[in-house]
Amino acid sequence: MSVFTPVTPEQMREWLVGYAVGRLTELRGIEAGVQNSNFFVTTTLGRYVLTLFESVPRAELPYYLHLMAHLARHGLPVPAPIATRDNDYLGTLAGRPAVMVARLAGRSVETPTVAQCERLGAMLAGLHLAGMSYGRRQENPRGPAWRETTAATVLPHLDADDRALLEAELHVQRALDAVDLPQGTIHADLFRDNVLWDGEHVGGVIDFYFACTDALLLDVAVTLNDWCGGPDGALDPQRANAFLLAYHADRPFTRAEREAWPTMLRRAALRFWLSRLEDFHRPREGEMVLVKNPAEFRAILRARIARPDATQLP
Amino acid sequence: MSVFTPVTPEQMREWLVGYAVGRLTELRGIEAGVQNSNFFVTTTLGRYVLTLFESVPRAELPYYLHLMAHLARHGLPVPAPIATRDNDYLGTLAGRPAVMVARLAGRSVETPTVAQCERLGAMLAGLHLAGMSYGRRQENPRGPAWRETTAATVLPHLDADDRALLEAELHVQRALDAVDLPQGTIHADLFRDNVLWDGEHVGGVIDFYFACTDALLLDVAVTLNDWCGGPDGALDPQRANAFLLAYHADRPFTRAEREAWPTMLRRAALRFWLSRLEDFHRPREGEMVLVKNPAEFRAILRARIARPDATQLP
Repeated sequence: MSVFTPVTPEQMREWLVGYAVGRLTELRGIEAGVQNSNFFVTTTLGRYVLTLFESVPRAELPYYLHLMAHLARHGLPVPAPIATRDNDYLGTLAGRPAVMVARLAGRSVETPTVAQCERLGAMLAGLHLAGMSYGRRQENPRGPAWRETTAATVLPHLDADDRALLEAELHVQRALDAVDLPQGTIHADLFRDNVLWDGEHVGGVIDFYFACTDALLLDVAVTLNDWCGGPDGALDPQRANAFLLAYHADRPFTRAEREAWPTMLRRAALRFWLSRLEDFHRPREGEMVLVKNPAEFRAILRARIARPDATQLP
Repeated sequence: MSVFTPVTPEQMREWLVGYAVGRLTELRGIEAGVQNSNFFVTTTLGRYVLTLFESVPRAELPYYLHLMAHLARHGLPVPAPIATRDNDYLGTLAGRPAVMVARLAGRSVETPTVAQCERLGAMLAGLHLAGMSYGRRQENPRGPAWRETTAATVLPHLDADDRALLEAELHVQRALDAVDLPQGTIHADLFRDNVLWDGEHVGGVIDFYFACTDALLLDVAVTLNDWCGGPDGALDPQRANAFLLAYHADRPFTRAEREAWPTMLRRAALRFWLSRLEDFHRPREGEMVLVKNPAEFRAILRARIARPDATQLP
């Protein structure tokens, strides 16, 4: 599904001459992801992943690549970009911007355990702490302006109930300014399929192409909504508490964050309800995007509105 | 044997506050190595190795740490130093210069196979190619000046045969100037115990504290003497050829290197015969150095002199 641009072994062998990682022994397309073309690359020296960028503009890539390098340098298990012999991360292969990164161990889980949610909390705190010293900044492309524009685009497609839900929620969200909360570099898309588990350890956090500068609490909320709830949107208090306590131990929540928490959980749900509505009602032409069901995030949003006290920050 | 300076879990917990790698879950001394104190450090986020430097002067450490970071960034499996939240690699723990590095997978082998020697050749070529763009330089502390001084120190302790062997060899070595050969950053100590194997892959190359700028061919010779010979110093042509061909495929040997090869193999043997003689006759006080038998490298030196054509460069 996700190899949009093919790469031949011959092209790959030629590309590898620019690196110091030995010679190609295996090249294999990866059947996952919806944004880029990915390949497992094995050489005489090691195992790597090649990514061809299908839609991210070239000028935006250094923000992501240097962030991944920065986090890896701080000991986080993220895919470090590999430098060429000329010390570049970003090249061109098969007409696409291309990068090789270190291949990480592990696989994602569908149903995380309490212990995994605890590990994940520590990991997210580590990402936020290490991200503090990252020098580049990037506004969240899914921030308030995007929220308003996208809502205006999808509103005409909604039934009366959903329209009322969306309009009321936009009103609530306008009252919370993320600038009043601790800001930093956030992953912004830390769903279960973006974390690889190697036994009980986090083997890797991947897919940094939504990373940006925003409220750290937004990242906590996006992550919790996906990892600690059921399909009906209800939260599992055990997993949620394990996740939040572990995060709090390394990056303590502030009073302002405690107050903003119920609204931030709704913001995180709204952001994905909106983007899925957008994909659903206006699929982008020529892209083989897997259109995910928007109803899942409407359920989460409704559950967060119905039970604002389902979780509290430590 | 090799924890000269103890570190308590409490000291370690405090030290980890400076990093973004989570909280301590296990601390364990490593019983290997003769120069530094090493510990396995496991945290909620990952697995690391802590090194306290017992003898390398602090001012010399940045050369090694930045080299390891440089090579890791280029995709080589070397222990990348972990940066603190303040972006430093080097700190102080228990009164010693200290660094944390990524923990690599695998274990060393005593008796390498032909296939492993082939992999190793590719790895050494990769180290040399990636090292070309490393900005720092450091003269080989075991270079010609050290050779002459050390020889003068140990000569009075030798019997007539060994003295004749050493004096003749010094004479031969004075005639070969490494400046006439391709230079670069070399590991200079790539013995079997400094390479970790993860199945058929090189999982890690460790112990860069002899790295320096010198003839690339010296690194090839040091490595071959240890990996491709028997205890009597005789070379195994199968392993030697596999190693040299794999190296040559990625970093082709030059004509000058082909001519210098027999002498360089002898230089590599002499360097370790001399340092072992020095350790044997003048053990440094207060250091728990494992004194290795100098006779092993005298045998290698004699074998290389007796059979200058035992290997040839491709």
